[in-house]
Amino acid sequence: MIGPVRPSAGALRPLGLDAVRITGGFWGERQERNAKASIPHAHHWLEETGWLGNFRLAATDDLVPHRRRGREFSDSEVFKLAEAMAWECARGGDVSVGELSTVVAAAQEPGGYLNTMFGRPGQQPRYSDLTWGHELYCYGHLIQAGVARLRGGVKDALATTAIRAADHVCVEFGPTGRQALCGHPGIEMALVELFRATGTARYLDQARLFVDRRGQASLPDVELGRAYFQDDVPVRERVVFAGHAVRALYLACGAVDVAVETGDDKLLAAVVRQWERTVAARTYVTGGMGSRHEGEAFGEDFELPADRAYVETCAAVASVMLCWRLLLATGEARFADLAERTLFNVVAASTSLDGRAFFYTNPLRQRVAGEVLDRSRPWPRASSGERAPWRDVSCCPTNVARTLASLGGYVATVDDGGVQVHQYAAGTVASGDIALTVATGYPWDGGVEVRVDRTSQRPWRLSLRVPAWAGEATLVTPEGTQRVTPGYAVVSRTWRSGDTVRLELPLTPRWTAPDPRIDAVRGCVAVERGPLVYCAESVDHDPATALDAVNVDRSAPLTERPLPALGRDVVALAVPASATSDPRSEATRTDEADDRDPSEPAGGVPARTTPAAGDGWPYGSISTAEAEPGNLTLVPYHLWANRGPATMRVWLPVASSTQDRR
Amino acid sequence: MIGPVRPSAGALRPLGLDAVRITGGFWGERQERNAKASIPHAHHWLEETGWLGNFRLAATDDLVPHRRRGREFSDSEVFKLAEAMAWECARGGDVSVGELSTVVAAAQEPGGYLNTMFGRPGQQPRYSDLTWGHELYCYGHLIQAGVARLRGGVKDALATTAIRAADHVCVEFGPTGRQALCGHPGIEMALVELFRATGTARYLDQARLFVDRRGQASLPDVELGRAYFQDDVPVRERVVFAGHAVRALYLACGAVDVAVETGDDKLLAAVVRQWERTVAARTYVTGGMGSRHEGEAFGEDFELPADRAYVETCAAVASVMLCWRLLLATGEARFADLAERTLFNVVAASTSLDGRAFFYTNPLRQRVAGEVLDRSRPWPRASSGERAPWRDVSCCPTNVARTLASLGGYVATVDDGGVQVHQYAAGTVASGDIALTVATGYPWDGGVEVRVDRTSQRPWRLSLRVPAWAGEATLVTPEGTQRVTPGYAVVSRTWRSGDTVRLELPLTPRWTAPDPRIDAVRGCVAVERGPLVYCAESVDHDPATALDAVNVDRSAPLTERPLPALGRDVVALAVPASATSDPRSEATRTDEADDRDPSEPAGGVPARTTPAAGDGWPYGSISTAEAEPGNLTLVPYHLWANRGPATMRVWLPVASSTQDRR
Repeated sequence: MIGPVRPSAGALRPLGLDAVRITGGFWGERQERNAKASIPHAHHWLEETGWLGNFRLAATDDLVPHRRRGREFSDSEVFKLAEAMAWECARGGDVSVGELSTVVAAAQEPGGYLNTMFGRPGQQPRYSDLTWGHELYCYGHLIQAGVARLRGGVKDALATTAIRAADHVCVEFGPTGRQALCGHPGIEMALVELFRATGTARYLDQARLFVDRRGQASLPDVELGRAYFQDDVPVRERVVFAGHAVRALYLACGAVDVAVETGDDKLLAAVVRQWERTVAARTYVTGGMGSRHEGEAFGEDFELPADRAYVETCAAVASVMLCWRLLLATGEARFADLAERTLFNVVAASTSLDGRAFFYTNPLRQRVAGEVLDRSRPWPRASSGERAPWRDVSCCPTNVARTLASLGGYVATVDDGGVQVHQYAAGTVASGDIALTVATGYPWDGGVEVRVDRTSQRPWRLSLRVPAWAGEATLVTPEGTQRVTPGYAVVSRTWRSGDTVRLELPLTPRWTAPDPRIDAVRGCVAVERGPLVYCAESVDHDPATALDAVNVDRSAPLTERPLPALGRDVVALAVPASATSDPRSEATRTDEADDRDPSEPAGGVPARTTPAAGDGWPYGSISTAEAEPGNLTLVPYHLWANRGPATMRVWLPVASSTQDRR
Repeated sequence: MIGPVRPSAGALRPLGLDAVRITGGFWGERQERNAKASIPHAHHWLEETGWLGNFRLAATDDLVPHRRRGREFSDSEVFKLAEAMAWECARGGDVSVGELSTVVAAAQEPGGYLNTMFGRPGQQPRYSDLTWGHELYCYGHLIQAGVARLRGGVKDALATTAIRAADHVCVEFGPTGRQALCGHPGIEMALVELFRATGTARYLDQARLFVDRRGQASLPDVELGRAYFQDDVPVRERVVFAGHAVRALYLACGAVDVAVETGDDKLLAAVVRQWERTVAARTYVTGGMGSRHEGEAFGEDFELPADRAYVETCAAVASVMLCWRLLLATGEARFADLAERTLFNVVAASTSLDGRAFFYTNPLRQRVAGEVLDRSRPWPRASSGERAPWRDVSCCPTNVARTLASLGGYVATVDDGGVQVHQYAAGTVASGDIALTVATGYPWDGGVEVRVDRTSQRPWRLSLRVPAWAGEATLVTPEGTQRVTPGYAVVSRTWRSGDTVRLELPLTPRWTAPDPRIDAVRGCVAVERGPLVYCAESVDHDPATALDAVNVDRSAPLTERPLPALGRDVVALAVPASATSDPRSEATRTDEADDRDPSEPAGGVPARTTPAAGDGWPYGSISTAEAEPGNLTLVPYHLWANRGPATMRVWLPVASSTQDRR
């Protein structure tokens, strides 16, 4: 199995990149873009920023503090790119890991230590700042890159370096070593994966130690609290994910890996319980996780603001990683459902259509149009209304790159009874005697045809996931047509080559209402079509402020129409809507310059004295506001911000419940 | 005039603590509590934390870095307490500024430099970190304390130290000095006030320099952007307050002071314009300002979430200071209206009933009951669900203390035509030949009686503010009864001793609806009575989760009832309401421990697997949820969290617009 996550136990066994090939369509195009644009782009920026150069300096002992560049976690970006390249190689791509492998290996110190930030003359000592230093976190990504090489059958310098680092960690932080842990989880799952790839049990033991050590308040009570790094509550006692979202989800991945490999059902049940409550109360309709800018963190239950949604791209990657682990462990469709939602609405949204610019945060409401970003320099902030080519903290591009390169590894599984297809992408699936071709225009088209190209003589089961959003679907088998409901549609029979099964998923656009406890979107509805969440973008409307006070009638028809500017097959939607009149004109405002009066030269007399709300105080008695009829265009959320700076909203106020005032 | 802000020009002239005495009632009680409890409490904590001790160490040259305690701005807390004590002295209180004055003066270096954080052996050099070092900000508070002494007629060591520091700043940062500015505004208004108190023009010149220098991008482009310290846009070109709320409002105060003293009408108009849009689109119904935890900042227009409202207490203090300056400059009632709203609903809310615990943030929704705080140690975080005795960043207690001690200075003014009363508090007002007594039970009672105790023979005008919330009111004068509308009710006549005027403000509780562009509270209403905003608190309801899914009918009657637990005169309200059934039970949850399963010992089997939303996904199709009828108790917002940990909400969902789902 060439792919991420190869458990030795669990309900389902993954099929890797050697067994699943995505050959086109939505994800095939994105895999090609990733290989041709995003991976070279990331490589360019790692050179440009010096984050790769840090390793070269380290190898020649020239790495004095003032020459090192980048933040304390920049080493991990090199490792994540190496992992992306490794998966890209494994799926047959034209990319070489050799250079990165050599550069990284040369920087490793005797004994296995490897970090360009610590330990040299003039730098802080090794492991002197476990709270913020990210040393073990960086090892985690190094090891995951090494595992990708090993799974691809290549024991190169990268793999060897990763193994030496893991051995070093087991000595340094083992039962008789430092009783400490890293402020950023991630190494736990990496060590379990290395155990799986090498059979060396102490990596698993060390991972279990790290999981069990967390939640004992050994990290300091920082301003954000110990919940920030999940050190407030032991993993087994936690009831919901909290704190920094990426940290929380990476830790959960490691906990599942440990649970599966050690047969620790209680630990697995604890993570499932946390996942359930998080999905029920702390997850956006896009699948995004992490409500708060402060601490890049989960909020309280039902604290899910649209405009200030943080929804870090890396948290979405981590959520997909966790869903896949839970799916393999339990075989339950709900985990594949959330993975699909997250892939289509956050992971796909994170990258521009040219593959060279990225969102770090993925809000569901953009109040002020983004600034046009200079593509020649890194953007200093995490958030931006337009995708940025690179950032001072640029964790997301390489994380998406490794996910897309290995995406074939998240599509299908086998068990003793047959083959399960969880995600729909045009391509082929092979396992043992069985070979399948999947033909589909998903998610634009709801039909998924699976053809049996090769089969054993024995009967086996083909299971196709019916997403929860479908309500019900139609399944056409050689035996006839049937209605199927969410979960897995299972066809158990003796197959012959050429047999086909066709799943028809209903893509009628639908209105979606939020739980009334989500205060931030009360009185609003969202629109979904298949797995895609839609949004309204100001570039389709005039004036640009129309979205601020738009109202929709949730009984209105949602009409499909093409939008070639965003792609050949893209389905946009149109719906009647009305807008409350708004005296403001913010067409020229951007998120960086909105506080300067655009109508005035410096020092001039202000032309406007009350450019905002009508009577100067936005709270008043109850009366009826005027609304002008119009039309609203809705585009798939993952495609927004590809046509210049825009405001945007996923949640649309419902006319009947809009609050009126004098 | 003994009080803050004595402009040499403008529509109105302030009356100080020598002219206005608050003798009882709402604010009188709070002034007493401030004098008896809060000021000694702050003094205790300044000793306990070593922030006062830093000055003693500095005076003896023992201040090596590892002995200094507190953050880079801790000096300012000592200065703010000194200012509070100075005003308390000035209004006749039994408090001595002598000790603080001596300790502070002894730490000043030759040449006037004074900061315990910089410049000594082993410390960073003076002015080496203007971005974050807060040196000029600290001077600002030192100078304001010195001005308070000078206005009180005392030129003591504190006043002399302040003058020497100001002289030092004028040399160091003057036209031929460093062309630089502090990351935190505040010194601008202080220098203008010192100019007013001493007549030394170069303090005013220096203040104008600092105002004009800001917005030239001389501070670095930090992660939060230059808007954080208002260095993105020049003050004259800005259209709305942005960035760190306290910084923005302090800067605006300084700009108004400079504008008034230099006759710069364009600068004044620019600040008025910024204030107007901020009030129209970036202000909470409580008057609170600053929506974001990230950067303690204003958000975009209409970005006003209830639960994550930052609403720093110090920003409310700063807003009152700004309103007062704008009122004096223009004579317009709207500035006094916002000051009143902010005083009653943020400043009053910040302090516990015993005067010894404080909110730093003042959200309009508490989702999870606060933790019971240990009163014996500072709280490490800005936010808490319960008021904290002190914090690692403890700017608010001393800021409220100086505001309450000088509150008499924000009540009334004179102009050539007579006397204006802007805020209603039981007490006396005297100016020249005129003396008045104000009798009122405001804000519990809407009647305000002004008796003329002494008067000149010439006719003069008595102006009483009619708040905008009143719609209209009744005025009873010796000539008869009339209806008056918001603004100033003016009685122009020849007065005789014993004449009375009675203003009757309508205190009928009222429903208030938000502008539809405030997404976060769509479909909700708030309740107000007079100047007070109300809220529902979980301690009055069972189960504790009742507030999560409560619905009110905005046509329902709001019934008044006493609530002696919160005070003798307190008026609570009751209203019929219904609650959507909620499967959760969070009665035992607190904001620090909510992620641990309370029903389970460590390592036990989880009893609950889906404790949150019904079907595990909080978004769905549209149907009707069940609601159970009940009653909702509403208490004045400023009194919440005085009866133990509680959840709370100001904005109440309206039944008819609540989103239902399957």
